[in-house]
Amino acid sequence: MPSPPEFDILPNGTVTSPKGFLAGATFAGLKTYGAEKLDMGILYSEAPCTAAGVFTTNQVKAASVLVCAKHLKLGRAQAIIANSGCANACVGAQGMKDALETTELAARKLGLEPEQVLIASTGIIGVELPMALIRRGINQVSVSPDRGAELAKAIMTTDTHPKEVAVRLELDGRQVTIGGIAKGAGMIHPNMATMLSFIATDAAVERAFLQQALRDAVDSSFNMITVDGDTSTNDTVLLLANGASGGRTLESQSPEAALFADALKQVCMHLAKQIVRDGEGSTRLIEVTVEGARNVADARSAARTIASSSLVKTAVHGGDPNWGRILGALGRSGAKITESKVALWINGICTMEKGTPVPFYKDAAVASMKAPEVSIRVALNLGRASATAWGCDLSQEYVRLNSVYTT
Amino acid sequence: MPSPPEFDILPNGTVTSPKGFLAGATFAGLKTYGAEKLDMGILYSEAPCTAAGVFTTNQVKAASVLVCAKHLKLGRAQAIIANSGCANACVGAQGMKDALETTELAARKLGLEPEQVLIASTGIIGVELPMALIRRGINQVSVSPDRGAELAKAIMTTDTHPKEVAVRLELDGRQVTIGGIAKGAGMIHPNMATMLSFIATDAAVERAFLQQALRDAVDSSFNMITVDGDTSTNDTVLLLANGASGGRTLESQSPEAALFADALKQVCMHLAKQIVRDGEGSTRLIEVTVEGARNVADARSAARTIASSSLVKTAVHGGDPNWGRILGALGRSGAKITESKVALWINGICTMEKGTPVPFYKDAAVASMKAPEVSIRVALNLGRASATAWGCDLSQEYVRLNSVYTT
Repeated sequence: MPSPPEFDILPNGTVTSPKGFLAGATFAGLKTYGAEKLDMGILYSEAPCTAAGVFTTNQVKAASVLVCAKHLKLGRAQAIIANSGCANACVGAQGMKDALETTELAARKLGLEPEQVLIASTGIIGVELPMALIRRGINQVSVSPDRGAELAKAIMTTDTHPKEVAVRLELDGRQVTIGGIAKGAGMIHPNMATMLSFIATDAAVERAFLQQALRDAVDSSFNMITVDGDTSTNDTVLLLANGASGGRTLESQSPEAALFADALKQVCMHLAKQIVRDGEGSTRLIEVTVEGARNVADARSAARTIASSSLVKTAVHGGDPNWGRILGALGRSGAKITESKVALWINGICTMEKGTPVPFYKDAAVASMKAPEVSIRVALNLGRASATAWGCDLSQEYVRLNSVYTT
Repeated sequence: MPSPPEFDILPNGTVTSPKGFLAGATFAGLKTYGAEKLDMGILYSEAPCTAAGVFTTNQVKAASVLVCAKHLKLGRAQAIIANSGCANACVGAQGMKDALETTELAARKLGLEPEQVLIASTGIIGVELPMALIRRGINQVSVSPDRGAELAKAIMTTDTHPKEVAVRLELDGRQVTIGGIAKGAGMIHPNMATMLSFIATDAAVERAFLQQALRDAVDSSFNMITVDGDTSTNDTVLLLANGASGGRTLESQSPEAALFADALKQVCMHLAKQIVRDGEGSTRLIEVTVEGARNVADARSAARTIASSSLVKTAVHGGDPNWGRILGALGRSGAKITESKVALWINGICTMEKGTPVPFYKDAAVASMKAPEVSIRVALNLGRASATAWGCDLSQEYVRLNSVYTT
């Protein structure tokens, strides 16, 4: 898999970098720990957008996910309302009632129909949304083109910093921007890892192509990162395209469709890697590339399994070039392998070739693993497919963070 | 799934408790760390046995696993030679050569054909078996009926204590004993978790039934425990039945087939739970029972996913009745669930019914979770199948143990 082309990354780029998008946030009182924090916000487009979404595969889905899926059937939306501090999940029928009321309140405030408002929640599960705070909070939010960074902060939970990026490209002679924010697989108060990302673009994009481009981008970015292997009830990626850049509407047949899709993938990868870097207790990013697989599914499965192995993660934490653990994870990944064809590199140092250990200077490997990024490359030599996954090391701090009692 | 009937557990029972089995061990020099330790041993039956085995599903298989699978095609065996300290895995063609030579040396010593000798290795991978030490070590081993405990020690790696059990039952008017040893999912020098178990019985058992009974017992015991989700290249469970108790040969149609199978399952469960209790850094055993599933595959998948979730494991470590994490793991397990039907208990305290949180006295739940065993029960209310899985908590000590550099 060749790397996608590089695009211009805007300084201070965020979800409101594309034309015609406004955002804002407030402290509604949903987060009670620590100092006052932003915990609720809105993304709004001046013009109606085509909209796409990708959601958690967990069978237990938060009400916000169900409402988004319903509203996205129309394929158009103009706003997203989001909160942190409470996931509004696993609370029975009340969850749907509260999620719907929240979209209605946001719609009324913005002069939209409720179906044009998407919604995302993240935080503790099994606790009802405190609707009195939500009602007051919505009224407090004011949106402007320079407040994307506030929204990025308002969706944070145990994230230590906001995650934002925007890229600019030329499509059909016009400047187009794609900007996004995300929050990450950190535990929530500490309860459950949730990944949220909102992406906006001023390109005009036909709905089916928008959804397909988002699906593809998510599959090679957010779906290729792992912090602790748990999938949240609330995972949500939303993409709004408002056409404010003024170009022709992109479709899958458009000559520039691939360029747009690559730029979108780049945005998703940037955000995904920011999430992993900020994984709870993480001190190192692990990049695992598997090449020469029979097919992409095998390559992805192998790369993800290696990146999520507790044994690989602890070895990287300890700076230990313990390649046996990598081979062990590879072998149980489900990807087809032939042991006598496998080659393996840690930070570019070959440790195995044709399934047989290669002598290497261990001190050099150990020293190289002190870097903030550790790369693992596996060649299966069975085919031409490849994939990259990103994970983080497993530290004692992860355990400390997640074994602290909730109250 | 009703619990298997209880059988008499012998005091100091071990793999040589059944009649006609002898064992012994030695320090061959394969383990170099710490004080002198037993690291090589033999289990020997005076009479030929029917034999069965279950092995790792990892595609990367140690030479010992491949040799066992080959020898077991004959369905008969009379000895097992085992070593710790070196897994003889991922070393290319040399691995098979050394494993075969080891079985030949053991066969010569015991007056058997090489095909009657099974073999198991556990320890660091990617390192060749030091054959000079193996050759000398085999000569040092002497076997006797009272040395099963020595063999249990010789297969230990980071296990903190040996794992042994034997049960006695009456079959066809005769006393029959099933005894076993195991070593656990601790890292090796620290390299890779390997599970080994050797089980012996003086019952006479027909080969196909022996293999089926072992397969079933492993599926509900060793395959239902999880320490860190990694599957070793060397996992091996071997069962020898020598018929020394003198009864008729058991077949699947025998009236007492179910009784024998239950007793075997009991032995496997005992050993499996000992392994989890001794999991690296483990301070608590987690027992997860899922009932009311559509089928056993669903029940097993749900129970295993919950028991292996890092979020559940850290919550249990912190004594936190954080049931949202349990539901999150359940939802991603692949087992069919209907959220509005799920009920959940932690140590017998109901926290959710019909998919809705139930008020409970949190302090009582927190206090109950200080116990050395924490039970999680989930009712899916979709069918009649159930399964139990066992795991351990995830502690900072686990990370410390596994991030220490190998040299």
